[in-house]
Amino acid sequence: MSIIPKTVHPDLQKERYNASFDVEEFAMWWHGGEEKLKFKRFLESYVLDDLDENAFRFQNLSHEDIYNSAVNDFIRLATKLRELQEKLNPGGTDIWPAYHSEPEVWGAIPAGNMFSVHLEMVVDCIRQQGTDEQFQKFGVPSQKLQIGGAYAQTELGHGTFVRGLETRADFDRDTDEFVLNTPTITAYKWWPGGLGHSANYCIVAANLYIDNEPKGLAMFMVPLRDMETHMPLPGIDVGDIGKRMGFAGVNNGFLGLKDVRIPRTNMLMRHSQVHRDGTFVQSPVPVLTYFTMVFVRCLIVRNMSTLLSIAATIATRYSAVRRQSPINPNDPEPQIIDHVTQQKKLFPEIANSIAYKLATTEVKKLYGQTSEDIKRGEFGRLPEMHALSCILKVLCTTASMTGIETLRLACGGHGYLVSSNMSNLYADAAASCTYEGENTVLLLQVGRFLMKSYPRAMAGKELVPTVAYLSEAIKHRTIEKWTGSWQDIIKALQISAANKISIAYENLTARRKAGQTEGEAANNTGIELTQAAELHGICFVVSTFFEEVKGLNSEKRSPALNKVLEDLLELFLVSTALKYMHEILRVIELSDDNLRSLQERLENVLKFVRLNAVAICDGFDYHDKTLKSTLGCYDGNVYERIFEEAKRSPLNKMPVPEVIHTHLKPFMKSNL
Amino acid sequence: MSIIPKTVHPDLQKERYNASFDVEEFAMWWHGGEEKLKFKRFLESYVLDDLDENAFRFQNLSHEDIYNSAVNDFIRLATKLRELQEKLNPGGTDIWPAYHSEPEVWGAIPAGNMFSVHLEMVVDCIRQQGTDEQFQKFGVPSQKLQIGGAYAQTELGHGTFVRGLETRADFDRDTDEFVLNTPTITAYKWWPGGLGHSANYCIVAANLYIDNEPKGLAMFMVPLRDMETHMPLPGIDVGDIGKRMGFAGVNNGFLGLKDVRIPRTNMLMRHSQVHRDGTFVQSPVPVLTYFTMVFVRCLIVRNMSTLLSIAATIATRYSAVRRQSPINPNDPEPQIIDHVTQQKKLFPEIANSIAYKLATTEVKKLYGQTSEDIKRGEFGRLPEMHALSCILKVLCTTASMTGIETLRLACGGHGYLVSSNMSNLYADAAASCTYEGENTVLLLQVGRFLMKSYPRAMAGKELVPTVAYLSEAIKHRTIEKWTGSWQDIIKALQISAANKISIAYENLTARRKAGQTEGEAANNTGIELTQAAELHGICFVVSTFFEEVKGLNSEKRSPALNKVLEDLLELFLVSTALKYMHEILRVIELSDDNLRSLQERLENVLKFVRLNAVAICDGFDYHDKTLKSTLGCYDGNVYERIFEEAKRSPLNKMPVPEVIHTHLKPFMKSNL
Repeated sequence: MSIIPKTVHPDLQKERYNASFDVEEFAMWWHGGEEKLKFKRFLESYVLDDLDENAFRFQNLSHEDIYNSAVNDFIRLATKLRELQEKLNPGGTDIWPAYHSEPEVWGAIPAGNMFSVHLEMVVDCIRQQGTDEQFQKFGVPSQKLQIGGAYAQTELGHGTFVRGLETRADFDRDTDEFVLNTPTITAYKWWPGGLGHSANYCIVAANLYIDNEPKGLAMFMVPLRDMETHMPLPGIDVGDIGKRMGFAGVNNGFLGLKDVRIPRTNMLMRHSQVHRDGTFVQSPVPVLTYFTMVFVRCLIVRNMSTLLSIAATIATRYSAVRRQSPINPNDPEPQIIDHVTQQKKLFPEIANSIAYKLATTEVKKLYGQTSEDIKRGEFGRLPEMHALSCILKVLCTTASMTGIETLRLACGGHGYLVSSNMSNLYADAAASCTYEGENTVLLLQVGRFLMKSYPRAMAGKELVPTVAYLSEAIKHRTIEKWTGSWQDIIKALQISAANKISIAYENLTARRKAGQTEGEAANNTGIELTQAAELHGICFVVSTFFEEVKGLNSEKRSPALNKVLEDLLELFLVSTALKYMHEILRVIELSDDNLRSLQERLENVLKFVRLNAVAICDGFDYHDKTLKSTLGCYDGNVYERIFEEAKRSPLNKMPVPEVIHTHLKPFMKSNL
Repeated sequence: MSIIPKTVHPDLQKERYNASFDVEEFAMWWHGGEEKLKFKRFLESYVLDDLDENAFRFQNLSHEDIYNSAVNDFIRLATKLRELQEKLNPGGTDIWPAYHSEPEVWGAIPAGNMFSVHLEMVVDCIRQQGTDEQFQKFGVPSQKLQIGGAYAQTELGHGTFVRGLETRADFDRDTDEFVLNTPTITAYKWWPGGLGHSANYCIVAANLYIDNEPKGLAMFMVPLRDMETHMPLPGIDVGDIGKRMGFAGVNNGFLGLKDVRIPRTNMLMRHSQVHRDGTFVQSPVPVLTYFTMVFVRCLIVRNMSTLLSIAATIATRYSAVRRQSPINPNDPEPQIIDHVTQQKKLFPEIANSIAYKLATTEVKKLYGQTSEDIKRGEFGRLPEMHALSCILKVLCTTASMTGIETLRLACGGHGYLVSSNMSNLYADAAASCTYEGENTVLLLQVGRFLMKSYPRAMAGKELVPTVAYLSEAIKHRTIEKWTGSWQDIIKALQISAANKISIAYENLTARRKAGQTEGEAANNTGIELTQAAELHGICFVVSTFFEEVKGLNSEKRSPALNKVLEDLLELFLVSTALKYMHEILRVIELSDDNLRSLQERLENVLKFVRLNAVAICDGFDYHDKTLKSTLGCYDGNVYERIFEEAKRSPLNKMPVPEVIHTHLKPFMKSNL
């Protein structure tokens, strides 16, 4: 019998009663309108209702059993989604609902989805890189999961630098086939999700050779396993790469290829082709090969905002229920959310969640425009789109990783329990700093983009929208009369970014003049380039936040909700200004009073956010089974949940584990 | 048959060949002399030689099996240490070598030691809090592990604020017993290491009541389990609290007590006593109860330096072997340690490891002096000792946690493999931010200490050594002529700390004047107090580092080693100055040239450290089985190790796991 009360904890009731705004209005705003919110709630309940509430328990299992349970959960989810789609869109071509990648359905596979790369990336890649015919042959069965795929690019010894990949595909003119090989162990494909034991097909990125002449990277549909028996095909060495920090059920795999033969028509040939006679036709726009990656990075920005807001919900609710350390010696212990140092940990992460949610909306808009451009054969905005997706990916993954850890620590000891779900969220976020473009590598790419933009700005030329602020910033280079307004803070960050960009540019140029090659100079300016890129990205995020709160959209919202969002904007801007104060003080003279006033504003706005923090997190509107946390449930019955969860630990099945009798007791007795 | 070459990777050979100093001299310096180094090496080999090299594999096991394997490993280690002690010190009273807590022996229990709290804290606590008679009765059998103990203070609903603990011990005059109870579920003892199923005794911290009158906290030796059967005794509800983020084998437990009766003489009575007639005698120096904690915090500082230097060794060696991304377009891929952005991730963590190692030596010295003072009945240095142990605990745990994660990320994807050992190191370091005094709570305590020191400084009174810098700093408040010397940097940090302390003091005073209670004012000044405490601690760490490198000890070292240490000091000081630049710029006017020069110094010193980085890590002198990493072995045969480890994954036992036949294939076919 459960000891968990059926009622909501009075401390949370009080918080909700005291909120100054309508949570439902916030939820609609956060989820993009009433209809979307309604559907999200329906979907979330639909996929989660038969899931064990304490789904983090998979972590007690062995590596093998985690995989088994994850496949089990995947099949249950996929079956339910297929049924739903049949009902919503009977007889349609897609058997999958369009929303299988939405954060709300993730939770149905607690250990992680071994086919998420297949569903989110492989299908899209076949569509974009394959011909229409190829999409019919491979893409449609993939959509229906008649075949399950993986995407293999990274190798054991090779990552970022794709030209360095060792895997090769040689065209055999006699048989009209490609022969694929991973000639060394460092050439083994490594890391692809689902590759271990789940996928039976794989998109393999390999260097194409015709008559032993290298033709550059191409992608090949390679069957891995027998369609009936699922046994690896001849020449295929495939398996699990071993346990990771997180992603427990994702079945990341390795792949060795030894003289594996596939028909010539298994090369994805929308952009470049190999003809029957061995003629090679180069893609007219090679950069399009990477456009799938841009899309994936936009998804990551959304996902990281989701992870962070989940963690913020857990930590904020817990902080409203947990009581600790009287503020005045003889007072009762207050809710820890009343300690200012605790507020400083929680609330900036709530604001961060919102900042990256808003950035997602903006970057998606730009992605849509760029896609339209491409269809019309215009590629001019690609570099900007690429740079923006890179920098947001870096910023949101870093913010999410560090934010979740701050929030976990804010939960004290109980945040270290797996059942808090915080360590699991952390492991997910931490991975994102490395996959789909390692963060430092991406920062350097953005740095290079800025090194091209800066001289254009100096020459007074027109700039693309995301760097347009540079023209203004290099004209003024400081703020003469600091008022501390939101506009001033944004301008201060822009001028700081411009200053950092200009320093990097000067150093780069000086190093070139001193005789360093372009590559050496870029490497030696690496630290400044990454710092400049970071500040540049921050400018986008603060502007987007400001625009949403103070722009036209504010007219659609109630004054009460606008006030809440203004508080969060104030918190975000003041925190960001303090974080980058070492850069701001280089370009803008702030008096001691100015600085004290920022500190005071921080302390003041924390008090305002304090009033609504629980309600804001309610407005994120996560199902308890999405949160998956003993600390974060809507009803706040934290201690009873931790207690019940402990009692359920498999170690507690017997009062004395066998190993005590066989090992510990004999040893203790031998010391007598 | 292993594919791992028997030779050292040529890239590491080259690094070692090019080192400018004698690694053996470094190792002697790091380990405190030739004799100590020799014994460390002997001990490390002795305890690790029969350990499976890939000991991280426990992470593949279920929660139960991890515990089983940890007990197994513990017994093997304990048996070996007992034999060793018998050989080294035949017939001695201690059956345990004094060094069971040394970092070098940890590695023998890869999943973590369920009796480390017993061996490091429980025995010491009985000695310090119990009478001599009690030590004979409980302490001696504990030393011999005839009984195994846990230390239970924290409760499910209560941590930091010990007066809030709910567990009570009522004296029963009739039977001369205490009756212990945990009246609610929030009163359950929660978290103690080893408590779950390992310990048969526990020191329970409880509120003492005599005739229903509270007498304050006291400690009680409570038998938990039958000495023969190990079954929980009547009234004892004990078990495992469930899986944690790390500490997999440490067997953290819960404990509920229902009318548990123990003899009066089981209360630890060195300082306070309950007599047969119920008379209560208060401890003359209540603060001594916490002196064990001071000692434990000193240990933590050492341990965190060790963890960080282990991670630095792994990441640095890997970075010398891994090749990625040409610096010039047509060059071969360089060792990633040649990328400046990579150097920026690795080398400051090497310097941090050293900084906290040196801080350990200093704080141990002060601990020794304070212990002597206490024996002489002098308690004057206790507050300083307490504050120093608190702030170093905070700084080193934070530095270690964030540093290890930086280093893990620097290993790219492979850092996410459990077999890199990085995630395990991270989980260990992360826990230390919370246990033995939650970091924010400790910062606030140090803040309070500083609020007492500051007015003394202002009044020109004498200050204890660790805050003595305040007198100077508040006199000058700035540096008129910045030279950028090491002394200038240290002074700049001291003045910044003093400034932060003075701001906190002013704000605190202003809030008191505005009518806030002392508690409210302290809470509202919380952010500034924690920031002031952090900066104050940094001043100690930089001074200690400077003193070691430039002080008298330098004469005992060769010029070559001194040059290496000077490079590391330069790196540490410049990095620290840049990190706290937002504070420094508030008190010292630095020109743009000054700032550029610091950046340049950072870039230059990275180049110098680059030459010796691998050799410095060799000088930390960790056994491969202490590193426990596929990425960090001395021979640098990284890829072969990752490869072999993957092949050994339990998931690869069968080419097609059963769940594919039972779940995945039927589903795929049903989509046809």
